[in-house]
Amino acid sequence: MSKVNLKDLAKELKVSVSTVSKALKSSHEISAETKKRVLELAQKMGYNPNPYAGFLRHHKSKTIAIIAPELTNNFFIQAISGAESVAQEKDYHLLIYITNDDFQKEESIVRHLQNGRVDGVIISLASTTKGYQHLNDLIHTGIPIVFFDRICHEIETAKITTDDFASGFNATNHLIENGCRDIAYLSISENLSIDNKRKQGYLEALLKHDIPFDPNRIVQCNTDENSNFKKIKQLLQQEKRPDGVFASIEKLALNTYYACKELDLTIPKDVKVICFANLRTAPLLNPSLTTITQPAFEMGKQAATILFKNLDKKRTLITNENIVLKSELIKRESTHVN
Amino acid sequence: MSKVNLKDLAKELKVSVSTVSKALKSSHEISAETKKRVLELAQKMGYNPNPYAGFLRHHKSKTIAIIAPELTNNFFIQAISGAESVAQEKDYHLLIYITNDDFQKEESIVRHLQNGRVDGVIISLASTTKGYQHLNDLIHTGIPIVFFDRICHEIETAKITTDDFASGFNATNHLIENGCRDIAYLSISENLSIDNKRKQGYLEALLKHDIPFDPNRIVQCNTDENSNFKKIKQLLQQEKRPDGVFASIEKLALNTYYACKELDLTIPKDVKVICFANLRTAPLLNPSLTTITQPAFEMGKQAATILFKNLDKKRTLITNENIVLKSELIKRESTHVN
Repeated sequence: MSKVNLKDLAKELKVSVSTVSKALKSSHEISAETKKRVLELAQKMGYNPNPYAGFLRHHKSKTIAIIAPELTNNFFIQAISGAESVAQEKDYHLLIYITNDDFQKEESIVRHLQNGRVDGVIISLASTTKGYQHLNDLIHTGIPIVFFDRICHEIETAKITTDDFASGFNATNHLIENGCRDIAYLSISENLSIDNKRKQGYLEALLKHDIPFDPNRIVQCNTDENSNFKKIKQLLQQEKRPDGVFASIEKLALNTYYACKELDLTIPKDVKVICFANLRTAPLLNPSLTTITQPAFEMGKQAATILFKNLDKKRTLITNENIVLKSELIKRESTHVN
Repeated sequence: MSKVNLKDLAKELKVSVSTVSKALKSSHEISAETKKRVLELAQKMGYNPNPYAGFLRHHKSKTIAIIAPELTNNFFIQAISGAESVAQEKDYHLLIYITNDDFQKEESIVRHLQNGRVDGVIISLASTTKGYQHLNDLIHTGIPIVFFDRICHEIETAKITTDDFASGFNATNHLIENGCRDIAYLSISENLSIDNKRKQGYLEALLKHDIPFDPNRIVQCNTDENSNFKKIKQLLQQEKRPDGVFASIEKLALNTYYACKELDLTIPKDVKVICFANLRTAPLLNPSLTTITQPAFEMGKQAATILFKNLDKKRTLITNENIVLKSELIKRESTHVN
């Protein structure tokens, strides 16, 4: 194969060499459209964009990466273990990257992976992620992606989620059946489809029981733990406070427990609490915490399995498919009928 | 610089080319001594052992790795966040590798890193790790290592630990002062120096209070959660059961809580519990758990800071130094006086 260089690509595309070079480095100065054209031609003409990537593409890096928003959420720890179990079986190394729920960090990590240090990527998006160009570019450099939990609908590939709408409905329905009439929903991010689905399930359950929806009962939390705690405390300090709290992630439920401690409120007598959690200590808490538990390990395992199936086939574009696993509602003391 | 090849090295060292090649791949067939000679000469003669490593050595990978035994222990999560905070500041990427407390996995990860995909490594050893050749080889390929918590005394470099002996003494002393006379120590591994130091602190406290030591009160646990649970349950089912339990890691304390639940034992009335833990939910447990809490975040931060100081100096051999941080004994309900 004769060596194709930047000049050849530039000539063919009628653009400057620096444009081609920047496009291959996926610089922000170059439009997605141009990047796509350059990368496609580079692939077609067999140009090797990067000796390092080339080295790996040839020898295989025998490495995959998993990108998760945080490690303080047990859901992600278990999902990582699930992916790890498959990587180990395949004799691959698993690199773990943490975005700290920061869009820029996520972008920087994904750009970093474009040099080909991994064969494929499993990712759960940061709650602050708004654009998806970095992910499209990664796929265009020939590195396949599989999403789990915090997915991006716009990108065509495999996505592993749980039945968030049904779970949101069941959680709220459980609170109502146990006597709650004024339920607050603690949301972690408006950007996340899973959060929106859980919220829709919550609204659907209120509707089913003819409970009017009060927009002030949606508490919009974020990645700032202290401000979340303050918001939850304010919610529970209101003269007419909610009799039930539905937390979209485990951290927010723990903040609710701490707030109740400070305000001398008793769970479940004064307020009932339910949340999405994979917390190992849920049964040991005071009171034990009612949870919707996602099959986190299984989700990570399936994401990795699908990724490897495509790596074996040397396919970089994974066919679009939505795999939805069931979560489990585990009833404990925090939602007991008074 | 004229290109030096394997032949030149072999000739110079009066060994076969395959020996040189195997030594550079750090094969198990080659003695550590020969490996050292080959690597030193390769460095001296400016031989580039691996185009990929060369690429990185030249361009800098702008990446460091942290190798931890597990993610289900909050100590490691916080230590990783500490290292992460420094890496971010330095605009480096942090790769997280998990050994699952498995020596072979640790070896394979370290060998994997020898190809130069990272500039430096922070590591806490697996509880099953017995040999250190893989670590020596990594240092010899020019990648510096800093240890934290589960360290290796034999290797000359920086090591970050906490005052495990003093903490072990204080934990046991606290149980004795609160009325315990028959205290069991739950050990996680005989290989780990930190475990041995905690155990020595335990023995020292018994001695100070003239409490005879019963070897049967040392419960040797391991990485198998189920067998650990059985052992702890057996301990608490004995006709004459201990009145205090000192767990060397948080998992073992949680197993003690579960065992007490099953056996209808009340903490702290029937048995008092204290353990090394960075558990976020410790204050929310039933009863709240008395802990010795290590400055995990600070440990990871210091390990990374020392590593970067040496990377900036382009030094691969870090001077031997033991940095010992203080842990904190946080008294809660699980050790209350009856």
